[in-house]
Amino acid sequence: MTVTEMAASAKKAALVLARLDTATKNRALAAMAQALEQNIDAIVEANRRDLEFSKNENIAAPLIARLAVDALKVNSMAQGIQSVAGLADPVGRVQGTTELDKDLVLRRVSCPIGVIGAIFESRPDAVPQIASLCLKSGNAVILKGGREAQHSNKVIVDLMRQAIASLPGVPEAAVQLIETRAEVAEMLQQDRYINLVVPRGSNEFVRYVQEHTKIPVLGHSEGICHVYIDEHADVEKARAIALDAKLQYAAACNALETLLVHERIAPRLLPDLARQYRDKGVELVGDLRACSLVPDLHKAADTEWDTEYNDLKLAIKVVDDRGAAIEHINEHGSGHTDTIVTENREVAEQFMNEVDSASVMWNASTRFADGFRFGLGAEIGISTNKTHARGPVGLEGLVIYKYKLFGCGQTVADYSGETGRPFTHRPLSDDTPL
Amino acid sequence: MTVTEMAASAKKAALVLARLDTATKNRALAAMAQALEQNIDAIVEANRRDLEFSKNENIAAPLIARLAVDALKVNSMAQGIQSVAGLADPVGRVQGTTELDKDLVLRRVSCPIGVIGAIFESRPDAVPQIASLCLKSGNAVILKGGREAQHSNKVIVDLMRQAIASLPGVPEAAVQLIETRAEVAEMLQQDRYINLVVPRGSNEFVRYVQEHTKIPVLGHSEGICHVYIDEHADVEKARAIALDAKLQYAAACNALETLLVHERIAPRLLPDLARQYRDKGVELVGDLRACSLVPDLHKAADTEWDTEYNDLKLAIKVVDDRGAAIEHINEHGSGHTDTIVTENREVAEQFMNEVDSASVMWNASTRFADGFRFGLGAEIGISTNKTHARGPVGLEGLVIYKYKLFGCGQTVADYSGETGRPFTHRPLSDDTPL
Repeated sequence: MTVTEMAASAKKAALVLARLDTATKNRALAAMAQALEQNIDAIVEANRRDLEFSKNENIAAPLIARLAVDALKVNSMAQGIQSVAGLADPVGRVQGTTELDKDLVLRRVSCPIGVIGAIFESRPDAVPQIASLCLKSGNAVILKGGREAQHSNKVIVDLMRQAIASLPGVPEAAVQLIETRAEVAEMLQQDRYINLVVPRGSNEFVRYVQEHTKIPVLGHSEGICHVYIDEHADVEKARAIALDAKLQYAAACNALETLLVHERIAPRLLPDLARQYRDKGVELVGDLRACSLVPDLHKAADTEWDTEYNDLKLAIKVVDDRGAAIEHINEHGSGHTDTIVTENREVAEQFMNEVDSASVMWNASTRFADGFRFGLGAEIGISTNKTHARGPVGLEGLVIYKYKLFGCGQTVADYSGETGRPFTHRPLSDDTPL
Repeated sequence: MTVTEMAASAKKAALVLARLDTATKNRALAAMAQALEQNIDAIVEANRRDLEFSKNENIAAPLIARLAVDALKVNSMAQGIQSVAGLADPVGRVQGTTELDKDLVLRRVSCPIGVIGAIFESRPDAVPQIASLCLKSGNAVILKGGREAQHSNKVIVDLMRQAIASLPGVPEAAVQLIETRAEVAEMLQQDRYINLVVPRGSNEFVRYVQEHTKIPVLGHSEGICHVYIDEHADVEKARAIALDAKLQYAAACNALETLLVHERIAPRLLPDLARQYRDKGVELVGDLRACSLVPDLHKAADTEWDTEYNDLKLAIKVVDDRGAAIEHINEHGSGHTDTIVTENREVAEQFMNEVDSASVMWNASTRFADGFRFGLGAEIGISTNKTHARGPVGLEGLVIYKYKLFGCGQTVADYSGETGRPFTHRPLSDDTPL
């Protein structure tokens, strides 16, 4: 099948998925989970071939670690699907009801987006996670995983598709897989059928996708996250948050990249904190004022304030005040996640209002910015877009809405001109029967 | 100033606008309205130059009519701005509050998108309308109007900017104007500063914009709207709606382009209805079955089912049943607005659920799909996107949200591993003080 044919069949499937009730979707999810649990050997065997390929290709060890799938991992994939089944259905929610006139009532109702194109890196557990989120939200999905995980992904998708196909009324084309870069390029041309592309991967890759498609893209550009330690900070909280944000998982997009410290607290805090970072193997660079407080600190190059290290490296800057901190973040940040540490509520509120990022935090680690931790159940990704969905995106980011107008024969001519009827535009309760 | 400099200053202005309170924004809107009312002569004089230019360029009469501005029109522009001031502020609304753990609470709050690029056709009244919607929602805007309206647009923008600049704390760069196509091309490159592009104009133009920018685009592709007259339709309602949808304003995007009629009602309805259309000057084409019912009906070319006439022309098709009608609409429609006429609730609900369009209607004219009629106050446009905002888009489509996390020193390490604290993920009331 060509990618165009796959996309066309995904659109057909999406129209069917859009009208499935919650129970049917949950049955499909349960069948998908069961199919994985009952075929652990097949999945692990396919994964073994991927691991072999990766070793032959000299792929980096951390990537290989993320690629590996054992029985435990398959069970956790199945549990992940089940937990999505347990989430509230995002489709069919009434988002507002307005009386336009007597017997002319408008209602806004959530509905699926349609067809999602999801392109992601090598972790095979992304496959059941993205597929289950799309199915629960009534969307068809075309998946493209990393080349290193191709055997694992194929087996997992085949099993999920067989599970879906075994249920009456659920279209198998709800979940499809493409495998080559040429197919990705073709997929990006399918704006007639695909409604949203979700790329997860390097910044370069997300930019490539944005430049090569007319389809709306939900992606995060970078995670240049900041912790700002205010003059009114509690030093112990500051230390704990600054260390956690950098060290708890340095490769994550919500990890700390630039530490900003108020000049009045820097002398008390920085020398010790720098030592703690160095003890944990973090390479530090800083601006001139930071260099004057921390021994042997290298001066940061101008470009480093705009750099996502994703690694055990940190840039430190001493700032005059909260205003300078906010300005630095809005200038150099990526709008992902930024934290202030302070005991002063007014300062915290100013920071949270004026920092233009998807997640702004007061006295908490940037690492909390995550769909699971935020209570969204699961996430399709973290968005630094300023439209549609921002921050960690769960099921709610996979729906849109339609307007339903309930009339009894009204024409617009009745409401036009000087003698036209006026509209009432009266809000009604969302449970008003129509 | 280059467009890049304008975009950069718009971004700075947006950060200021985002934190303005409602009263300040409304004062700015009142000042803008007053500035127009007090300078009617200057606006009409500028418009006179545009009209002269258009006549010399042999621009079509309907376009010239839309371009003309007199004192009455200026007053109605000012009233339009005032009515936007009267709308509820879409910024700062709490959209959900979740306890992640004791003293760790997440809140989602609406906020402006940032910088909007708005490109539109020749009507000068679009200028105050779009500018006021953007200002009320805390967004900076860069406007580009039609070349035919350039003098009118410039005077109107200058007056609004002077009005804004006279108020302390409101940045003049909130509203800016560009004038040439070269500047539009440059604007589409400003994805670093501009967060959303709203093109209004021909389909070709919207497509051009989509193909030449990485910035998200909120535009409508086409308005291929349908009325489906079901076998259970009330004939009088059907006639009234079918005529209104085509004739009340044929050039509008929500006007009827294809009439679908159930085969059981077609013989009773179509001959008379066709006569009424022809009496009003509507050119009709049809499928073979429609041709067998309506005298002298030309057969529609295959491409006509996918055509937006925007004019006094209509395609008529006789369908087997509601399923065929729904399928035709999902295949050939543009996802804009579609209506069913029926007295059968079950059929109506199936139609409204299964037709994948922004606005779906039961016994009401497609012409109701409009921001004002829907009670949104005013609209920035009608979107056939399936992400961010769909259908008539008012103030709500000009905001996004941010997450605010209120902690007291928590780290993610505390919540990780086997001995980690569990999250509570308990919904809280949105008026819980934090």
